[in-house]
Amino acid sequence: MLPTPKKYFVTAASSEGRSELTAFDNALLKARIGNVNLIRVSSILPPGCQHDPELKLPEGSLVPTAYGYIISDKPGEIISACVGVGVNASDTFGVIMEFSGKCSKQVAEENIRNMVQEAFEARGMELKEVKIASVEHRVEKIGCALAAVPLWY
Amino acid sequence: MLPTPKKYFVTAASSEGRSELTAFDNALLKARIGNVNLIRVSSILPPGCQHDPELKLPEGSLVPTAYGYIISDKPGEIISACVGVGVNASDTFGVIMEFSGKCSKQVAEENIRNMVQEAFEARGMELKEVKIASVEHRVEKIGCALAAVPLWY
Amino acid sequence: MLPTPKKYFVTAASSEGRSELTAFDNALLKARIGNVNLIRVSSILPPGCQHDPELKLPEGSLVPTAYGYIISDKPGEIISACVGVGVNASDTFGVIMEFSGKCSKQVAEENIRNMVQEAFEARGMELKEVKIASVEHRVEKIGCALAAVPLWY
Repeated sequence: MLPTPKKYFVTAASSEGRSELTAFDNALLKARIGNVNLIRVSSILPPGCQHDPELKLPEGSLVPTAYGYIISDKPGEIISACVGVGVNASDTFGVIMEFSGKCSKQVAEENIRNMVQEAFEARGMELKEVKIASVEHRVEKIGCALAAVPLWY
Repeated sequence: MLPTPKKYFVTAASSEGRSELTAFDNALLKARIGNVNLIRVSSILPPGCQHDPELKLPEGSLVPTAYGYIISDKPGEIISACVGVGVNASDTFGVIMEFSGKCSKQVAEENIRNMVQEAFEARGMELKEVKIASVEHRVEKIGCALAAVPLWY
Repeated sequence: MLPTPKKYFVTAASSEGRSELTAFDNALLKARIGNVNLIRVSSILPPGCQHDPELKLPEGSLVPTAYGYIISDKPGEIISACVGVGVNASDTFGVIMEFSGKCSKQVAEENIRNMVQEAFEARGMELKEVKIASVEHRVEKIGCALAAVPLWY
């Protein structure tokens, strides 16, 4: 089997770019995950997976990551992205939720808290805390707002 | 290289949720794949990969999975999702197809059978059987129909 | 951790299909990546990763791949896809960009060159060369244009 991740951090950033993909790339760079190969996952915090905000990811490595993002080319538009990691009160797995939209950071965070709460209710689990990372961006030309939970070893 | 999967099952489920992502999450839970990290793949049944409907996936593990889904927030709308695993008459690899749409389960299954047939024709391979999982859902508020083929070890 | 890829090639192809997913599948086959499980990545050329145009991928294997594609069902429409691998003048990692759109191959390639250039500028790195693969397709019924950079070991 593929090795189950043991560490994670939460991150969010926004950026402009000269194209949609480079706006995304620039946001990844500002979020400290621009020089790795993100593999998108859907999205459970493995049992025992530890929060490590100082994690350094080797360049070019394959990094399982839960993320949400939004790209807009409408000048003046407000875009936001948020991730939330629901940590379990018991010593077992948690749940990760991602959200992005044409809304404020506050609305994105509220959505995330509700989604994590619902995911814990659906599993009959008790929520200890929610680790949040979020960002709000006013589009200049082409902008991207991104939030991510990289999982690592 | 990454280890090639050796087992699989087919699954489908639908659910409502209070948001789009939690509708998806609830459908994953009902499909028995809600507590793992899905890595979406596109989508070959590896040679020798065995059907194991009793597979238990460790919580939080990285699970290569072919899947299709549809989310709708239009009350009363019918949505369906279907996967099909084309098993080869020869002892070699097969092909997995996914479909989702605003249609009945029957239409989704017909589409999948045609797609698997076409994929086998394109490869000059003979089809032994098609393993199908499908689901149909009438949206109440926010609903998700999902079908998946988790690959495992 | 997941093993970091050591080899890559660039490829592009287009095809018709009787459905959207089989058009995509047929394009993958013509691009020599139709019989593996693509895992989409976002998208760095790992340090020391070598170009190997003769790479053979084992059937059914999990292949980290950066790719872009477009599917259209409008007869006569021109669609194109392109990938570019920016190779670093220094002996370190590079950057991969993907593009697809309703445009000519030439426009797609120009976009890719600009995106790779911007990604190198953003990192303060010097570009040695850009390896390009691109394809242009005129849709008959349902067509797909696809370009990809499979990463391997």
